Amino acid sequence: MKQNIYDNDTFFSKYQEIRARENNYNNLLEQPNFFRLLPTLKNKIVLDIGCGIGDFAAYCISQDAKSVTGIDISSNMIANAKKLHIHEDLYFEQVAFEDMKVSNGTIDFISSSLAFHYIADFQLLIKEISTALCEGGILVFSLEHPIETANMGKENWITNEEGNLLHFAVDNYQNEGLRTLNWLVDNVIMYHRTMSTIINTLIENGLQIEKIIEPIPTKEALCDLPSLSKEFRRPSFLIIRAKKI
Amino acid sequence: MKQNIYDNDTFFSKYQEIRARENNYNNLLEQPNFFRLLPTLKNKIVLDIGCGIGDFAAYCISQDAKSVTGIDISSNMIANAKKLHIHEDLYFEQVAFEDMKVSNGTIDFISSSLAFHYIADFQLLIKEISTALCEGGILVFSLEHPIETANMGKENWITNEEGNLLHFAVDNYQNEGLRTLNWLVDNVIMYHRTMSTIINTLIENGLQIEKIIEPIPTKEALCDLPSLSKEFRRPSFLIIRAKKI
Repeated sequence: MKQNIYDNDTFFSKYQEIRARENNYNNLLEQPNFFRLLPTLKNKIVLDIGCGIGDFAAYCISQDAKSVTGIDISSNMIANAKKLHIHEDLYFEQVAFEDMKVSNGTIDFISSSLAFHYIADFQLLIKEISTALCEGGILVFSLEHPIETANMGKENWITNEEGNLLHFAVDNYQNEGLRTLNWLVDNVIMYHRTMSTIINTLIENGLQIEKIIEPIPTKEALCDLPSLSKEFRRPSFLIIRAKKI
Repeated sequence: MKQNIYDNDTFFSKYQEIRARENNYNNLLEQPNFFRLLPTLKNKIVLDIGCGIGDFAAYCISQDAKSVTGIDISSNMIANAKKLHIHEDLYFEQVAFEDMKVSNGTIDFISSSLAFHYIADFQLLIKEISTALCEGGILVFSLEHPIETANMGKENWITNEEGNLLHFAVDNYQNEGLRTLNWLVDNVIMYHRTMSTIINTLIENGLQIEKIIEPIPTKEALCDLPSLSKEFRRPSFLIIRAKKI
């Protein structure tokens, strides 16, 4: 199933509101750690899967990447990306990764920020990524952490009568697949996978794990957004760097 | 700190009672999955860290390993191992791994079942394992899962008033280090590490991840021990195979 929630107008406008705030989880937690795993970009052929409004693709161009293609299934996102970022080596395309034609072994670096948990067939996704990457090519991606997605759809921060957080509830960990949640709008779909499925799928497709990050906030980020202190109690995100061998 | 809880007489006799039952978590869940990750043992030089009463070391001999050394810091365990298993290529030694003298690059296969969560300095442990392994040598180890150890010391299965399990409580995930729990006796010590620490420590020490397992029970195991159904809700164990590169 190719979910295209970002073309739901209500969702998209609420999403834009969140992202417009500087103090959000992406800017303060996910992105700084995602950047820690990047390879050098100079002269690289880059593909960004789930590129959104194209900020990261444009960043790669600013770092002298040879060419950067950003893809997203949302026409809203691609329309914005094309308006915001114009460069002769920067391409945006409204297409699902599964439907994109990429010549085998031609990409140096594939990136994807917080998109893979929307994709139903992880096995196929990783197989095609591995095929597209050149030998020694790098994949860096972030997704919702399996601890976070396991019981998704329920309220997992358990509070006492005074409203204080007691702990985070994990359940259904081994039951992989569809999760439905109400985030910005009703019935957003995500997919839960275990840590072992994520890691083994990479390895089985010839992608060697180089580093994983379960991000924690810096002191500065905590000052800007105190609710990030919950990240010490359970991780929200998982970020992985792997190399095609 | 080198904890030697297995030389506490009360602990050891209770532990022996549990292990004497055929239907325990080790026999039904951890061991079958541990065995799935083993390399061929024929003609291999094997070191088993935390060998207990030596059953696995003896199994390696039965599979034509060239020589097998089992080490454990518990004199109870080593005394039992020496009584139970006698073979000219099988050695048992009461020593902590950190204190053992192993020539660099001489071991083909290092195994460790449910012992690493007792070891304080994981970084040093993995560094020494990597040094001891030959090129292409294999490490297979199991330990308590980070989801299980994060909030260890508290009762983490949350129940409703009728006593039904609601969910598993995760907390303090990023706070690595000592956990004190009451298991068989008071104040057993374990160490919590995050998934990223475990995996990155292996990689940083030249050990390439080959596969990880978060075990689930078979139908037969569930019949023998129905409480194993909890394993679908959160994983108890993590089992990793890595190769020295």
